[in-house]
Amino acid sequence: MKGRKRVLVLGATGSIGRSALDVIRNAPDRFEVAALTAHRDANGLAALAAEFGGVRTLLTGDASADTIADFIGSVDADIAVNGIAGAAGLEPSRICLESGKDLALANKETIVMAGPLIRTLAEARNRRLIPVDSEHSAVFSLINAHGSDAVESVILTASGGPFRTWSRERLSSVTPEDALKHPTWAMGAKITIDSATMANKGLEVIEACRLFDLPGERVRVVVHPESMVHSFIRTRDGELYAQLSKPDMRHPIAAALNWPQILPNHLEPFDPEALGTLHFEPPRREDFPLLGMAYRSAAMGGGYTIAFNAANEIAVAAFLERRISFIGIAETVARVLEKDWSAPIENFGAVAETDRRARSEASESIQGENSW
Amino acid sequence: MKGRKRVLVLGATGSIGRSALDVIRNAPDRFEVAALTAHRDANGLAALAAEFGGVRTLLTGDASADTIADFIGSVDADIAVNGIAGAAGLEPSRICLESGKDLALANKETIVMAGPLIRTLAEARNRRLIPVDSEHSAVFSLINAHGSDAVESVILTASGGPFRTWSRERLSSVTPEDALKHPTWAMGAKITIDSATMANKGLEVIEACRLFDLPGERVRVVVHPESMVHSFIRTRDGELYAQLSKPDMRHPIAAALNWPQILPNHLEPFDPEALGTLHFEPPRREDFPLLGMAYRSAAMGGGYTIAFNAANEIAVAAFLERRISFIGIAETVARVLEKDWSAPIENFGAVAETDRRARSEASESIQGENSW
Repeated sequence: MKGRKRVLVLGATGSIGRSALDVIRNAPDRFEVAALTAHRDANGLAALAAEFGGVRTLLTGDASADTIADFIGSVDADIAVNGIAGAAGLEPSRICLESGKDLALANKETIVMAGPLIRTLAEARNRRLIPVDSEHSAVFSLINAHGSDAVESVILTASGGPFRTWSRERLSSVTPEDALKHPTWAMGAKITIDSATMANKGLEVIEACRLFDLPGERVRVVVHPESMVHSFIRTRDGELYAQLSKPDMRHPIAAALNWPQILPNHLEPFDPEALGTLHFEPPRREDFPLLGMAYRSAAMGGGYTIAFNAANEIAVAAFLERRISFIGIAETVARVLEKDWSAPIENFGAVAETDRRARSEASESIQGENSW
Repeated sequence: MKGRKRVLVLGATGSIGRSALDVIRNAPDRFEVAALTAHRDANGLAALAAEFGGVRTLLTGDASADTIADFIGSVDADIAVNGIAGAAGLEPSRICLESGKDLALANKETIVMAGPLIRTLAEARNRRLIPVDSEHSAVFSLINAHGSDAVESVILTASGGPFRTWSRERLSSVTPEDALKHPTWAMGAKITIDSATMANKGLEVIEACRLFDLPGERVRVVVHPESMVHSFIRTRDGELYAQLSKPDMRHPIAAALNWPQILPNHLEPFDPEALGTLHFEPPRREDFPLLGMAYRSAAMGGGYTIAFNAANEIAVAAFLERRISFIGIAETVARVLEKDWSAPIENFGAVAETDRRARSEASESIQGENSW
């Protein structure tokens, strides 16, 4: 019998990290924790380390980039779950692959910012990139099942966020408190705001294009408020195939950790009766313009997707600090995307430099608006 | 390049036959009609024969069993679409396989009555059995995609028929006119009544057990009035996978004729937005008892599924002739199933004999009730 899979959990005290540890906790015959990292929650990290037999840990909030790289590189693990939020997740993704670990990737910025570089690296090291967010996990399973040659397009579902039915006027007065109420998923603040603006779905469109080698025309979005259907593929014969389960991140995490095997897990299976009523509707592209900007960024190539992501991160932070309005998030990103980001991104240094420049443009743009 | 597939269409003037011919008509590079049969519609058959280049035809209504067998056996075809309604479809299915044709099977009675014999025959002749009704076509595609080892259970969707929401009291006064109004599918009278009683879903449960080698516990039914989700599988990891398209029999027919290839067709692809609102609910087993009887027949084995089907055919005919009530259909089948049908069914002769005996029991039972 092959031994247990050794799992490095990056961002262990966050929503993805805790879900991953619950999957590991409930399949001790298959998985063991190799090491854990957290950003600032020292007590939470210590408690988890104790539970999982005193494994090595690193608190990354005050650590240097070199310290983090050395730690991740030195961990003996078969697979890493990257549950780090935002652009900060890219460098750990790179080091995981460099040091020979498969990568279960919840950090979509890794692909949005550096998809081609990361995929080239994974191929060079013969490591697997397995998406962990619910939509891409569904698409990954569906494409693996049906074969990429049979797939005509991918349709990502979007909850539509808390403002799906709000009028355009009402959207202009959204507060951070309004935006932090997500209808179906309990997640961190950044991704919850991104869900409310549909920037999150935009990032997922870019991720799907980069992960599955599809042009934007073959990646579509349908709003589905119940989040039961995680995504669809449409095959060449016009049939739709969907993956469904309760909205619970432990499903895609279990799928990624078990991959390529399909194995039972401790999660309660649910019956199709429990689907109840499901709704599907087109996204309101005019009122949630970040979705369209993401498509255009994906089509433009170069550094545009890096700029989209960086500008959005800065703008969301500014919104949470009440420095800009909810619709100001999209306005900020739009202003940053008006700059020229067409230079090709040929290495991770160019990714970092483009990211820095876009953040700086976004911050300046926000200060410029506020100084009026 | 391989030549076009030559298709024999059995029941060419019926709903399945005409849908099959529409698929063939729109892919003349892939398919050609080898021959056509119809039951009684001589004019319809002649018109179709003329359209498809004067192909051979047989009107089966007045033909002897030997004439039909000789005709089917002598047709040079790669695949036959069996769209014959009811138990009359079994013998043609057998002859198609005997004479070396793959079988695209819309006639579920073939499997309900003689599943093990037909599958043994198909394997012996190295011919394919491809289900054509929408539910089993969906399950067939899903199992082919995900692999049978990954499948924990199959969940067939049921429209629930026109009486899904009717009270038990109201069900006792259903007329043939009420029952012939199907909410989503336009089909023949027999299958429409079967849909209203849920006997059709019962037959499909038996068919799924026999086609996919599953015990009844692993074949479930969920009511889904919109008929957009054609069926689900649940994989061992608890995920549900569904196939969806507009309710149009040309989809599963095209899938069967193209199998094992997944090829574009002339049918309008539909977007997930067009799904609108979908409902799922448990079947009302107490008020539609034929579903439970089908499960019990599948579990009992022997000739029980033959008896279930035969008794139901006789009872539906009696209902359409106003000799028994709507709820009398289930009562008739229940009385027939009380007899002993446990003798093993070892050859097609035993199938025919059991079928005859069950029809006779059902007719007697109906006469007995009416003579009170």
